[in-house]
Amino acid sequence: MKRYAYFISDGTGITAETLGNSLLSQFDKIQFERVTLPYIDSVEKAEAAVAKINQAAIDSESSAIVFDTIVDKNIRAIIDTADAFKVDIFAAFLAPLERELNVDSCYTVGKSHSPTDSANYLSRIDAVNFALDNDDGAKTRHYEEADIILIGVSRSGKTPTCLYLAMQFGIKAANYPLTEDDMADLSLPAFLQMHKHKLFGLTIDPDRLSAIRNERRANSRYASLKQCYHEVDEVELLYQREQIQSISTTDKSIEEISTRIMALAGLQRRLQS
Amino acid sequence: MKRYAYFISDGTGITAETLGNSLLSQFDKIQFERVTLPYIDSVEKAEAAVAKINQAAIDSESSAIVFDTIVDKNIRAIIDTADAFKVDIFAAFLAPLERELNVDSCYTVGKSHSPTDSANYLSRIDAVNFALDNDDGAKTRHYEEADIILIGVSRSGKTPTCLYLAMQFGIKAANYPLTEDDMADLSLPAFLQMHKHKLFGLTIDPDRLSAIRNERRANSRYASLKQCYHEVDEVELLYQREQIQSISTTDKSIEEISTRIMALAGLQRRLQS
Repeated sequence: MKRYAYFISDGTGITAETLGNSLLSQFDKIQFERVTLPYIDSVEKAEAAVAKINQAAIDSESSAIVFDTIVDKNIRAIIDTADAFKVDIFAAFLAPLERELNVDSCYTVGKSHSPTDSANYLSRIDAVNFALDNDDGAKTRHYEEADIILIGVSRSGKTPTCLYLAMQFGIKAANYPLTEDDMADLSLPAFLQMHKHKLFGLTIDPDRLSAIRNERRANSRYASLKQCYHEVDEVELLYQREQIQSISTTDKSIEEISTRIMALAGLQRRLQS
Repeated sequence: MKRYAYFISDGTGITAETLGNSLLSQFDKIQFERVTLPYIDSVEKAEAAVAKINQAAIDSESSAIVFDTIVDKNIRAIIDTADAFKVDIFAAFLAPLERELNVDSCYTVGKSHSPTDSANYLSRIDAVNFALDNDDGAKTRHYEEADIILIGVSRSGKTPTCLYLAMQFGIKAANYPLTEDDMADLSLPAFLQMHKHKLFGLTIDPDRLSAIRNERRANSRYASLKQCYHEVDEVELLYQREQIQSISTTDKSIEEISTRIMALAGLQRRLQS
């Protein structure tokens, strides 16, 4: 059975998508065809959206599910005419919150994501640039400024995690790839040792690592199971020996790796939501 | 007046945060102290969370607002004992959805974000690596493979937008910085011309650009108002002459720039949500 799911917003659609996908993920027997319609901020766009939703209902022989976060009452009224089951996020929660907080909500179109305040924008860009400049051990002289330094073997997930920490939380995250040279020694390189309180280790299942490396360099020594087992063993011993906190990235999304690191390292987000 | 807002989840907390912040942004007269408590997946952690919430209520002399997406009934029951106004996202919407879809939801702990399926993880990492490899005009020989190529003057937002498109949507986005040389010519460089259908222009208010560049290189010619006005004028003329779609990044968040580009360029996300 297939059902259409629409995420409709007068802004980016991110809230509608995030909540909608969370709810839909609880129904794994049903196949959903997902469509996001952002920036529905005029009568014309709303009418075009309704036409699409109604066509989807005909095609799939069942009403679409609509998740919406539109705040303008006139545009909402148009969306309401569609042949759909509506999950109306703001209607469900804004009125009870107004009573609890004892004030009216401002109910402004697209208020939740824009305009971004300028200080926030700049610190986010700063953090992204920091992650790019300090990726893959390229520079180690900025480690003083880092909030956290991720270490781990090649392809264990360091780069995307650093970028996500920067983008989502404004955290300045550097990363340093541990190679066999680093692991053979009994101690960390001096430039890591002096920032030991900022180090956080990534580890990964060796079979998974081998599969990822094979995507990059098929049938290489680098991607071989033997090499992957060896490197992961060594790196886990290093974390233990040096008492460096670590997590496994196997079967985790970048969001999950990042939010777990935030919690385990006790980092506070540097961006106002 | 200050109120505490808690985002509580047995997973990353991203759904609770996203919805919660959207709702709270409608109340701009109230100052919220926001706290995210992810991975609340045991009785002990839930009890610790309740203690924090109750302490916050005492400190702020008013009940906290709690947004939660916990699915385990026992853990939920503990959170319910806190002195708080609860916005219970799953309780509000799952039962009506179950009736509409005529199936029970699986109600699995943390199901919405993990485990990620492996194909999704790899295409996301691929897209992030593509953005990194093709940043700032570093390489132009992979443009064949790009889904989109962002062009614009230095510091107009190309890099963070490419990274967000990769991370969030799995889109392979390259970017090329337009310099005075490119703009002086009457035509695009050949390697851009041949991918003209993939080009998307960024522009920015010159005063804002000057402020951003001054953060990087204070009082330089590069950051001067005169130079910024000149470059932005030229680049907007180029977009017009070559009929390249463009948007202004001024006062927009990276999310908004990215989702608008997705919609305007007609790009489809390459990741399953």
